[in-house]
Amino acid sequence: MHETATDSNMDVNLREVPRVCDKIAQKEKEGKTFFSFEYFPPKTEAGVENLHARIDRMASLEPLFCDITWGAGGSTATLTMDIATNIQKYQGLDCMMHLTCTNMPAGVAKEALKESKEKGIHNILALRGDPPAGEEWKAAVDGFEHAIDLVKFIRQQYGDYFSITVAGYPEGHPDGFLAGKISYEEELANLKAKVEAGADVIITQMFFDVDLFLGFVKKCRDAGIKVPILPGILPLMNYNGFKRMTGFCKTAVPSELSEALEKVKDDDAAVKDLGIRYGIDMCTKILKSGLCPGIHFYTLNTENTVMAMVDGLGFVSSTEAIRSLPFRQSTLDPRRNERVRPIYWANRFKSYLYRTTNWEKYPEIQWTNGTARMFSDPPKENILNNGDVTPEAAKKLLEHYGELDSIAAVQAMFAKYYSKERANFPWCEKDGLYEQASLMKSQLLWMCKLGLLPINAQARANGVPSSDPVLGWGAKKGLVYQKAYVEFFAPKDQLDALIESAKEYPTVTISALSSKTDMVMSNTMDSATTVTWGIFPNQEILQPWVLDPVSFKAWSDEAFGIWRSLASHYGLDSNSSKTINRIADTYYLVSMLDNDYAQGDVFKVISQSIRN
Amino acid sequence: MHETATDSNMDVNLREVPRVCDKIAQKEKEGKTFFSFEYFPPKTEAGVENLHARIDRMASLEPLFCDITWGAGGSTATLTMDIATNIQKYQGLDCMMHLTCTNMPAGVAKEALKESKEKGIHNILALRGDPPAGEEWKAAVDGFEHAIDLVKFIRQQYGDYFSITVAGYPEGHPDGFLAGKISYEEELANLKAKVEAGADVIITQMFFDVDLFLGFVKKCRDAGIKVPILPGILPLMNYNGFKRMTGFCKTAVPSELSEALEKVKDDDAAVKDLGIRYGIDMCTKILKSGLCPGIHFYTLNTENTVMAMVDGLGFVSSTEAIRSLPFRQSTLDPRRNERVRPIYWANRFKSYLYRTTNWEKYPEIQWTNGTARMFSDPPKENILNNGDVTPEAAKKLLEHYGELDSIAAVQAMFAKYYSKERANFPWCEKDGLYEQASLMKSQLLWMCKLGLLPINAQARANGVPSSDPVLGWGAKKGLVYQKAYVEFFAPKDQLDALIESAKEYPTVTISALSSKTDMVMSNTMDSATTVTWGIFPNQEILQPWVLDPVSFKAWSDEAFGIWRSLASHYGLDSNSSKTINRIADTYYLVSMLDNDYAQGDVFKVISQSIRN
Repeated sequence: MHETATDSNMDVNLREVPRVCDKIAQKEKEGKTFFSFEYFPPKTEAGVENLHARIDRMASLEPLFCDITWGAGGSTATLTMDIATNIQKYQGLDCMMHLTCTNMPAGVAKEALKESKEKGIHNILALRGDPPAGEEWKAAVDGFEHAIDLVKFIRQQYGDYFSITVAGYPEGHPDGFLAGKISYEEELANLKAKVEAGADVIITQMFFDVDLFLGFVKKCRDAGIKVPILPGILPLMNYNGFKRMTGFCKTAVPSELSEALEKVKDDDAAVKDLGIRYGIDMCTKILKSGLCPGIHFYTLNTENTVMAMVDGLGFVSSTEAIRSLPFRQSTLDPRRNERVRPIYWANRFKSYLYRTTNWEKYPEIQWTNGTARMFSDPPKENILNNGDVTPEAAKKLLEHYGELDSIAAVQAMFAKYYSKERANFPWCEKDGLYEQASLMKSQLLWMCKLGLLPINAQARANGVPSSDPVLGWGAKKGLVYQKAYVEFFAPKDQLDALIESAKEYPTVTISALSSKTDMVMSNTMDSATTVTWGIFPNQEILQPWVLDPVSFKAWSDEAFGIWRSLASHYGLDSNSSKTINRIADTYYLVSMLDNDYAQGDVFKVISQSIRN
Repeated sequence: MHETATDSNMDVNLREVPRVCDKIAQKEKEGKTFFSFEYFPPKTEAGVENLHARIDRMASLEPLFCDITWGAGGSTATLTMDIATNIQKYQGLDCMMHLTCTNMPAGVAKEALKESKEKGIHNILALRGDPPAGEEWKAAVDGFEHAIDLVKFIRQQYGDYFSITVAGYPEGHPDGFLAGKISYEEELANLKAKVEAGADVIITQMFFDVDLFLGFVKKCRDAGIKVPILPGILPLMNYNGFKRMTGFCKTAVPSELSEALEKVKDDDAAVKDLGIRYGIDMCTKILKSGLCPGIHFYTLNTENTVMAMVDGLGFVSSTEAIRSLPFRQSTLDPRRNERVRPIYWANRFKSYLYRTTNWEKYPEIQWTNGTARMFSDPPKENILNNGDVTPEAAKKLLEHYGELDSIAAVQAMFAKYYSKERANFPWCEKDGLYEQASLMKSQLLWMCKLGLLPINAQARANGVPSSDPVLGWGAKKGLVYQKAYVEFFAPKDQLDALIESAKEYPTVTISALSSKTDMVMSNTMDSATTVTWGIFPNQEILQPWVLDPVSFKAWSDEAFGIWRSLASHYGLDSNSSKTINRIADTYYLVSMLDNDYAQGDVFKVISQSIRN
């Protein structure tokens, strides 16, 4: 008798395992390779914002984890922690935080570990760290002297809570073997001691000589080091940077690489191309060797080169980067297992996370759990998320949207978004048409023309394969379902006509709220209603998107607030501001659902209301 | 603007409202009438068992609640409490417990109320009670004197926890107006006082004169009594009983009834027919008046007459008594909202309730909730549920099943059940073929022939209307789904062949356990798997039946235990006992699921295993 594991639903649960060592073990069990990304804390606030936007995009490639280097001392250290926390919260990637001994009194390291645990970070890269520029390395007063001391301390204090990674040096440590201070064998013994002290994973210093690296891995294995070893790959992106970095780290450069590089050194684009090609070759050779389960990329906070390499390596297709849910899950405790959200915030994730930060528990399978959930107020500042109220931003906004001094101008503004003439839209955090809207573009444009201003929508789906590139999510070989849904602003007379015509469509439920009235409903909707769900082999049902009357009220405050925030960017007495505020005062926010996911058509009600 | 309530999903939630006053209000809101049943505690244990079996059958008519009269003093009082609790637990009806002042020191009443609350009973019928036979009524030392004292006490001590019902006397109280002690108006004033003291509902003494009753209701309304008034209907079942009862209660009998009755008094069947016809006429007239929301039946613990009346009144079709779930929910706290169970116990509800009695919380939407659920041991005694180990029972069992002294004889025993030649079956608590089995009768019979001994099964269903008479459940206009599932005992070689042939059917998952080995699986099933679910308008998804590896282990102990229990009924050294124990020792319990609910066929794997 045997127990056979299939590959049916492993991927989906990866996100739930926070420790890098466990994630690697899962991937090895599935016989799949992976990659990870390293970033460093930017120096400015704008830089941090850009980095998050970049990681957002890179997260879609589904790296196994990412790590953030440690800005030793002071504000940079706090920044490392903040970035790691925000990546787990917003980008939904598990983070590994670097921790170095350089300039670190033991007290600071202890505090950082305590905070990491509190913030739900489960991975530490324990390093001695480089000495400050131009100095010899020395431990801080009362600080840890070697990485191994840090490893021991973490294991002693936190047991198995953290997955601990340590650095490996294929060419020898610049301050050890490379400096002639100890033998290569002694270095291997030191590395083995770090593993024996509790390290789970090794990531190596960057290198360009694959044979040298593979030799290192074999020597590790011979020495009895059994933990996974990830090659650290630094993309070659420009000639001068490469020269500086390899010089500083005393890195061996194979002659075929240096010769090829010298030939193109004055052509930046050709250097980049060479870097990508050479990197892909290196990684292919390493993965083929079967000695390493995945690749670690030193991104240097850049995007294109690394993404081109990941793409070239075919990682995306081999991991079949289908989303595990229609929304990107957070990896921050206690949100890690959150699997249900109201669809109202489908295009405003960050605002949703902000307004639900203080919840003690997040819904895993069902929305309603006996208690109505309380939402914090919407973020007051920067509610538009596309700019703030500085005069420059206001000017930019006016350029974007133009004058909105009549309902017709507002309709045109909406239409430009749905026709993809303009990428930004106040009710969507990210630039570009939201995913589901592109499936119903013509209907949404038609609504704009009618004066019904759509801000959210999803198409009907009756058992679409979970591998569908647009609608699919969740485990393989499942089927996903959607009830057609559209949310829009409408004036009262048009809402009345819609409710009248909905009487002929009993499967349709309309809920509507103005900023000044109670909820209007065409049908009973006492509690939450699932609008998106999936059925998978050998699993319970997932129902990630719901409608919910209580949440709709909280959302409508925000949705109307966006109008007012928009108005505030125009002059107080401007016609645009007056028009926008009139909409905010008199229009209804309408949520329209067709329960018939087999044949329903939520737009029929609109057609009917026009005929009536 | 208006809020329109539809009738889409009200029925389903009724079970969740425990208080009779709230249940009545919901029915009135829906514009639907209802009925309720009164029972009294039987004198013997066998009588109690019979009563529960009877209520089980009558519960399928979906009465709004039932009530149990109070056996004043001693063991009968405990019995009332036990019966009410068991009805809530097993029959899933909300109970109203009678509480009388007769022979009741205040301490006893207080204790009874405390226990009622602890046991999850939310309804009390507060009565003064009849005096002991042949005596004048008098309050117990330190006891309550009038029903109103009891009402006041309950409200004072328990606030709104209980719904309180009091008695109304359309013809006057036999000890009051009828005895000439007070005027009719004074009695109405007393009734009004009871309502003002906190009564929510009035149920009347039995009567046969509808005009008299309707006059009473109108007088109540005129007097400012606004709570619902339910007519208490006593079915006329036999001549002598009728004479005795109406004499004792001094009930007015309309001349057309007494004349009709005298004509047929010697023909028991004709009396019954008359009773049913007259009862239906009375109820029709009352309901048509619009003055009463429903009918209360004094069943006298009988079944046929009352059921005939309910049927004749068309209650069944008007309430569309479709189950709210595939299993009957318990109304006992904290089980009231339980909506998920492992399908293994689909035919052994009582055993499931027994084995999960001590849980603090029951699953409402999903089975898995981070923790594995612990099952108590199966009920040791009477595990067969169809008889116990007395010599008489053993003899009966032998007659039922005959000798089971070979595998062929056991196969024949299974086949007789699935061919409906025999109604009882050790793995099914109730007599008769379990519901889903009748949909797959020929396949299950075919399995018996092959030596695969089926004990549970459900058919595949891909979006069947929730109103379907066989597979339907839940709110109206929903769709229900089932993954095909069959559970059976099989010898090891046949299991091996099945697992081999399952490789060609990737949607099929086989799990198997023998009494001596670890779980064997053909596929990964890490946690619970939904096998039955329903999608309803404006609701979250319900997934009432699941498979779950942990529960399967607990269930298999019970399923194998049934073999051993069966063996024990035959002589220790008998060939039957040896054959049965050999099966228990060497066979596997096999759970076979086809995840493809659109086109799968779980039996194909079996066909394939024969061809191989």
